[in-house]
Amino acid sequence: MSPQFEKVTLIGLGLIGSSLAWAMKRGGLAGHIAGAARSAETRAKSLELGFVDSVSDDMAEAVKDADLVVICTPLSAYTAVARAIAPHLKDGAIVSDVGSCKRSAIDDVQQYLPDHAHFVAAHPIAGTENSGPEAGFAELFDGRYLIITPTSGTDGKALERVKRLWETIGAIVEIMSPEHHDRVFAITSHLPHLIAYTIVGTVADLEHQLAREHVTDEALVRTNEVVRFSGSGFRDFTRIAGSDPTMWRDVFLKNREATLEMLGRFTEDLVALQRAIRWGEGEKLHDWFTRTREVRRKVLTEPARAPQVDWKENQKTSSDSD
Amino acid sequence: MSPQFEKVTLIGLGLIGSSLAWAMKRGGLAGHIAGAARSAETRAKSLELGFVDSVSDDMAEAVKDADLVVICTPLSAYTAVARAIAPHLKDGAIVSDVGSCKRSAIDDVQQYLPDHAHFVAAHPIAGTENSGPEAGFAELFDGRYLIITPTSGTDGKALERVKRLWETIGAIVEIMSPEHHDRVFAITSHLPHLIAYTIVGTVADLEHQLAREHVTDEALVRTNEVVRFSGSGFRDFTRIAGSDPTMWRDVFLKNREATLEMLGRFTEDLVALQRAIRWGEGEKLHDWFTRTREVRRKVLTEPARAPQVDWKENQKTSSDSD
Repeated sequence: MSPQFEKVTLIGLGLIGSSLAWAMKRGGLAGHIAGAARSAETRAKSLELGFVDSVSDDMAEAVKDADLVVICTPLSAYTAVARAIAPHLKDGAIVSDVGSCKRSAIDDVQQYLPDHAHFVAAHPIAGTENSGPEAGFAELFDGRYLIITPTSGTDGKALERVKRLWETIGAIVEIMSPEHHDRVFAITSHLPHLIAYTIVGTVADLEHQLAREHVTDEALVRTNEVVRFSGSGFRDFTRIAGSDPTMWRDVFLKNREATLEMLGRFTEDLVALQRAIRWGEGEKLHDWFTRTREVRRKVLTEPARAPQVDWKENQKTSSDSD
Repeated sequence: MSPQFEKVTLIGLGLIGSSLAWAMKRGGLAGHIAGAARSAETRAKSLELGFVDSVSDDMAEAVKDADLVVICTPLSAYTAVARAIAPHLKDGAIVSDVGSCKRSAIDDVQQYLPDHAHFVAAHPIAGTENSGPEAGFAELFDGRYLIITPTSGTDGKALERVKRLWETIGAIVEIMSPEHHDRVFAITSHLPHLIAYTIVGTVADLEHQLAREHVTDEALVRTNEVVRFSGSGFRDFTRIAGSDPTMWRDVFLKNREATLEMLGRFTEDLVALQRAIRWGEGEKLHDWFTRTREVRRKVLTEPARAPQVDWKENQKTSSDSD
């Protein structure tokens, strides 16, 4: 294929940045891929792996002459990135991103860009629990959703070019408003991550307590029981609770209102089930669990658009009831 | 192999009962396998599939001459089962079970059995989200843990025979007190299931609300978004929230105290994280998420003892961050 962009610059060379580079290389979609990263180790590793053609620690230099700049840093860096690159963007340059919260991304970037540059906010629904430039692979976005969240000020032609790039890579592009995006993903992604992070921390603490008490409990001293018996349910939660801490800290802070609202609803339901258990209201529990089983059936009819996972790891991770 | 028991009777022919039957057949471990089930459909299906040699709707008849009786019903049926079979147990008969709560199992069964019969409480850490006699397969327990929870009154020889059976089947047998078992599994299994059940119900309700609001939200009307974007985190929770409603209703009611205690701890932690999000305490979040990532690393070093899953389904189920 002929390049869709002469020069593409990626700011941030972690899992998503490196995967995007590999995917563009696979399709021959960029004439030159430049990468910017703060860490010398990341820059060296990226060059060595070969998914970038040049690297720099200077964002301003890296975006020079770029037709497309994609911000692939944690959300908390967006404002600093926008300010640093703005004066050096070429006429007509497109700036995009891959962040998980779209209202904040637009607010943090748009205002700093010059009129001759066009911001197109985007979010690929793909990832693994691994981080860093070694974690990337060209197939990460194959058959996955890519959400573009335009506003009234978004340039139509720029949007089309970003859309075409991701579709050529193999993603399924959806368009929605940033507000709608942030609510949908507060539900399907941010709340589940917060719950998983919580329970994995709670359980880790409980294991320590149990291990201490255990010493006096008959002759049954065993360490590491939580990990050993994690296949009985807990293990399902550890995968998403193993996701990148910086990225997720930023997601919760940047999509705070929607996350807190969804969390409030979750807590109300949890308290209702807690009360049903305490009062022995079996029918209420049975009704709830029957309803959730239906949701599972619906999810199973949806084609496999879950983010990619490593098969080997998958085998170790999967678990179920009991 | 020569049979370890001349006649084995299974009370209840669901996922676990049918899998145990298949595993015994595979190893030639039982001279005759009798099954008791209330539903005519289950009995007919079990005979047709061939994992039992005889079936009956009368538990009293089914346990006649049995050397081993394994209760494979939901926990709420244990007392009724124990009362029904007690007068018909042969001299020296061993009664065991496969329930997820051990203190209640012992309390609900032991007192009804005659002195000439021996109860050995057991719990295989294995399962899938599927139920019924068609769901069973011989390999379900291969390399999985089987917990035996003796009390001071447990007959040593009976325990050894149950232990040997499960080891021959391929399980890894662990011995612990019923109280310890119930605490460990409240943490690793019952709490995670309750959380998953809760969030899947919460999200299902939110989807309905979102779908309604959506009608007036620009031209972006889309149904089923939660399911479509479930790969971004939510999907991980739906699998365990698809587990058998009756079994899990009984687990929460029978292991009520331990479940409520663990739930209390979880809720405290969740409220602390909620507060950190509201007040923008990024460092607190980052520290917590770093700690949970370590737990994930530990879990990944544990050999695959998670319950069996269907590979095809697994592919659809797995997901990760973003």
